[in-house]
Amino acid sequence: MYVIGERINGMFQDVKQAIQEKKADIIQDLARRQMAAGATALDINVGPASGDAEGAMLWLVETVREVCDAPLAIDTAKWDVMQAVIPKVPGEVIINSTKADVETVVEYVGLAAANDAGLIGLTLDADGVPGTLDKRVELGAQILAMAMDGGVPMEKMFIDPIILPVNVSPKTPMQCIEAITQLKNFADPAPHLLLGLSNVSQRCSNRSLINRTYLAMCIGAGLDSAIMDPLDTELMDSAITAELLMEKMIYCDSYLAAVR
Amino acid sequence: MYVIGERINGMFQDVKQAIQEKKADIIQDLARRQMAAGATALDINVGPASGDAEGAMLWLVETVREVCDAPLAIDTAKWDVMQAVIPKVPGEVIINSTKADVETVVEYVGLAAANDAGLIGLTLDADGVPGTLDKRVELGAQILAMAMDGGVPMEKMFIDPIILPVNVSPKTPMQCIEAITQLKNFADPAPHLLLGLSNVSQRCSNRSLINRTYLAMCIGAGLDSAIMDPLDTELMDSAITAELLMEKMIYCDSYLAAVR
Repeated sequence: MYVIGERINGMFQDVKQAIQEKKADIIQDLARRQMAAGATALDINVGPASGDAEGAMLWLVETVREVCDAPLAIDTAKWDVMQAVIPKVPGEVIINSTKADVETVVEYVGLAAANDAGLIGLTLDADGVPGTLDKRVELGAQILAMAMDGGVPMEKMFIDPIILPVNVSPKTPMQCIEAITQLKNFADPAPHLLLGLSNVSQRCSNRSLINRTYLAMCIGAGLDSAIMDPLDTELMDSAITAELLMEKMIYCDSYLAAVR
Repeated sequence: MYVIGERINGMFQDVKQAIQEKKADIIQDLARRQMAAGATALDINVGPASGDAEGAMLWLVETVREVCDAPLAIDTAKWDVMQAVIPKVPGEVIINSTKADVETVVEYVGLAAANDAGLIGLTLDADGVPGTLDKRVELGAQILAMAMDGGVPMEKMFIDPIILPVNVSPKTPMQCIEAITQLKNFADPAPHLLLGLSNVSQRCSNRSLINRTYLAMCIGAGLDSAIMDPLDTELMDSAITAELLMEKMIYCDSYLAAVR
């Protein structure tokens, strides 16, 4: 499982404050704890704070790099920030994310290819998040085809079919499961299929239960990556156990500890 | 979710003793508690005890029927016991189970049709449990085709693709998920797809975690029934939440309680 740890994000109060006050130890502690809990990569997001987004992002990247050499997923909707930061990230980097509009994909694929970066593509375009399975798959396939043409290998591509909260969009969880199944077969080797998992349970009760149950269902359909909280022990247990059942590893009594 | 409660089974020590000593209250308590926890039907199995299996089965049926009008799944490998007991069960009844050999299926389908009973068909034959996905699907489809010919409606059919323990047969969990997906499309309305869930974790550590993770994965693929322990609260939470995510119900904050 390619777990992208979600906790270094300025939408969380502790991270927001750490960015404002340049408290490196709080950020580095979050980086270390997520890696120890089983993260493969770390998402880096300065949050909705106003001010110098590029400077804040570069500070976060430098701060995390001092203690962690995992891939960093640079998470911003601002193209100018993305363009400025990506070439400056030491080590492995992932662009999080591009929408599916053709002119946008061209720019992001170019940036990814020029910097040997991974790229997360969202199945949404100027019309917003699709209401149908077919449109989700069409937009995902469009991004993947353009990535192939642009020289980004499938192993570096992540397609996110955009999960919406089950309490407001009850059809979306099934649509995403089917989109995962279909897009997994787009190429061999397959691209990564990814979800921003916690969105499925926004404003729901039993959030952790809904997250870990949906994660297991999606892994059964071929999901192999998620932006999620590796510090949620039960969620990681679910991810590791689902991968055991997909034969990604061989059973031993200590399989949970072995992965971590 | 069509949950068939597994606890009234003579392989459990408390049930074995209750059968031997004709302690109805222990059996009736297990029936009531399983129903209260969300069971749809109850499995009835006298266990491997020697002696009068038919008499013991009839006593269990009568004892449970005094407190519960749910469907009863008569669980025995002995054809003479099955044949004798099925016509004597008041209310709804399920035959658990037939193997896939043609001459066997003919007999069991006849018994089901004559008694308006449900029928669980196992995808195994004289050669044992298949090692391939194709053979699992072939045997399942064979049982379903013969049931159609024999007048058992698909709504009363349950196909069990036979899960084996993940620690000895690591390929089987994925094979069963794919078999569920394929057999679900055999007819419209679809037959039930069922698993004897707890077998996936035989002699494993973390049994409950493995069971509930695999159940969620299988529900995502189309499983709608399981022989399982409804008294395992976390397992039932997983089943109910997975069905919520399959849009089998609409979200409300108390969805877990609403199902129970």
